[in-house]
Amino acid sequence: MSHFRPSLNKMQAYQPGEQPTAGETFIKLNTNENPYPPSTRALEALAALSPEALRRYPQPFADEFREAVAAVLDIDRTWILVGNGSDDLLTLLLRSVAASDRPVTYPVPTYSLYRTLAQIQDAPTIEVAFDEAYNLPVSGLVNSAAALTLVANPNSPSGTRVTNKVLSELATQLEGLLVVDEAYAEFATDNALALTRRFDNLVVLRSLSKSHSLAGLRLGFAVAQPEVIAGIAKVKDSYNVDAVAARVGTAAIRDTTHTQTNIARVCTARSQLASALNALGWRVWPSEANFLLVQPVDLDAGTVYRALKDRGILIRYFNEPMLRDKLRITVGTNEQNAELISVLKTIVVDPDSG
Amino acid sequence: MSHFRPSLNKMQAYQPGEQPTAGETFIKLNTNENPYPPSTRALEALAALSPEALRRYPQPFADEFREAVAAVLDIDRTWILVGNGSDDLLTLLLRSVAASDRPVTYPVPTYSLYRTLAQIQDAPTIEVAFDEAYNLPVSGLVNSAAALTLVANPNSPSGTRVTNKVLSELATQLEGLLVVDEAYAEFATDNALALTRRFDNLVVLRSLSKSHSLAGLRLGFAVAQPEVIAGIAKVKDSYNVDAVAARVGTAAIRDTTHTQTNIARVCTARSQLASALNALGWRVWPSEANFLLVQPVDLDAGTVYRALKDRGILIRYFNEPMLRDKLRITVGTNEQNAELISVLKTIVVDPDSG
Repeated sequence: MSHFRPSLNKMQAYQPGEQPTAGETFIKLNTNENPYPPSTRALEALAALSPEALRRYPQPFADEFREAVAAVLDIDRTWILVGNGSDDLLTLLLRSVAASDRPVTYPVPTYSLYRTLAQIQDAPTIEVAFDEAYNLPVSGLVNSAAALTLVANPNSPSGTRVTNKVLSELATQLEGLLVVDEAYAEFATDNALALTRRFDNLVVLRSLSKSHSLAGLRLGFAVAQPEVIAGIAKVKDSYNVDAVAARVGTAAIRDTTHTQTNIARVCTARSQLASALNALGWRVWPSEANFLLVQPVDLDAGTVYRALKDRGILIRYFNEPMLRDKLRITVGTNEQNAELISVLKTIVVDPDSG
Repeated sequence: MSHFRPSLNKMQAYQPGEQPTAGETFIKLNTNENPYPPSTRALEALAALSPEALRRYPQPFADEFREAVAAVLDIDRTWILVGNGSDDLLTLLLRSVAASDRPVTYPVPTYSLYRTLAQIQDAPTIEVAFDEAYNLPVSGLVNSAAALTLVANPNSPSGTRVTNKVLSELATQLEGLLVVDEAYAEFATDNALALTRRFDNLVVLRSLSKSHSLAGLRLGFAVAQPEVIAGIAKVKDSYNVDAVAARVGTAAIRDTTHTQTNIARVCTARSQLASALNALGWRVWPSEANFLLVQPVDLDAGTVYRALKDRGILIRYFNEPMLRDKLRITVGTNEQNAELISVLKTIVVDPDSG
């Protein structure tokens, strides 16, 4: 006899990308980590942590980090909720908004965790397909009449971004809450933060995982009007953000010079990598994130994925509708990207040589 | 119009104990932190963390820490799930087991987060009162016929512990899942880990917050049979435990010598503090945790709480049924406990002098 809710027994857990163990030396271009190390200020903050910071419970709202976000982004702190990664904030949003009679909608393909979190909540999901160019299906999302609409922007795995004009049209027409998941926004030409002032039903999510090279730390935040922030906060764990993450994240987000330099390097490398893949004849979607969605020509995407893995390079292959002929490649260092292209050229010539 | 589930609009969020901000210099005996610093091995592990550990996503199951727990407690790793504090594991248990047609039961008074988490899940709660001696109301809990039974053992705020014999009687008679929340078990004379081998419906929760002086780090784990662990794991965030906590926690839990020495100091201080409070004529419940539930004589408990706060000492006062004539006092260092007794003596003489 199962001890769990019946709907969970049928459910598959979300599968994160492969994490090589300590001994393995893959070139890791599969989970969108930033290829460069975090700010030295963040590392100094880590080294300077006192035993007292570990011994005591942290501040329930990660005050120090919240103040830093408020200062850097020029937002009042009551508009900010800090989470144990932006996944924590997505979980809190689903738990506080979705239910069996309160559906969730999102365009697909996108971050598949949305589906998993809705299923855990027993909430119906209405999945509305993007077109080939990844234009946002605004009317389809509006017609879903969902309690919660989720838009990853830039989207994963496409890397494409929709404009604030389109997001505004969506927010205006929706009755429910609109979450703009901006995990990759620092790599983009614009973002939706300003829209939180105009729309009381709009929540922006941010993560320090990619933009600040802190995926290991688990730190993200939500920005929305204070009434919305207070509602989400009701369901969070008392101490959801640890003292180390709050301290190190504070140093990281305040080091805007490092972040800008780092982001610029990744964006330059992204252009070069896109050109090199285009030169192989592959289709490359226009990306405003730190990864590229690509479609190989004359080669099966799964075959390319496996051949690269055999040669020590991990990229992401999604064996699911609309994606199984494509690959998602994280932008690495210039050396890693060059190695990728070099190995891909041998696979293009002889796909079975691995 | 609210964007949230209707039941949440009515709900009060859980209120953690007061956290003084950086500038304040309270003697803090209100949230059961260990008064001594963590293991130096843990601090060394923190200082030795590489930028790579921050840059990359952590292992989804905190493998390194899970292996350490398995080795130290002699349990197979498939019986262990690591969480972002034991609050995270409680949240996962409520989300995976409780629902509007799957009630939750627990003896009261106890950790009030249980009620909050059940409310978030829209699950009915059946609260069964302890007697004055905090004997476990086994038949009352069994008669609740709940999907989930929660027993804090040692219990908070009483500090009392029920035996494995009583827990076994309960586990045998329950159809649903039994969670034994052992956040304070390292300060007790026995624990329920061995019962997980006998009962496939029993989950033990542990925390490193108090026993290992790591409340700031957020690290706990569940022990149960592998089928149960797999069920809980389905609803966890992909990377619920950060790389820093996994690494530092590994060093801490392996340093069993430090832990034993630290625990012994706290237990000795607990006896001395209990004797001193008894000498004031106060009732003190027998504690196997790192705190004491006490009942002042000839003094209102709320008055004592406020008078102590005015004098720079924070203890815990619960303004709720069965507790508003009592106080919970965390065992501090010998110096802190002596200061508490010294100040209490002035309050006993003249309660309004603060």
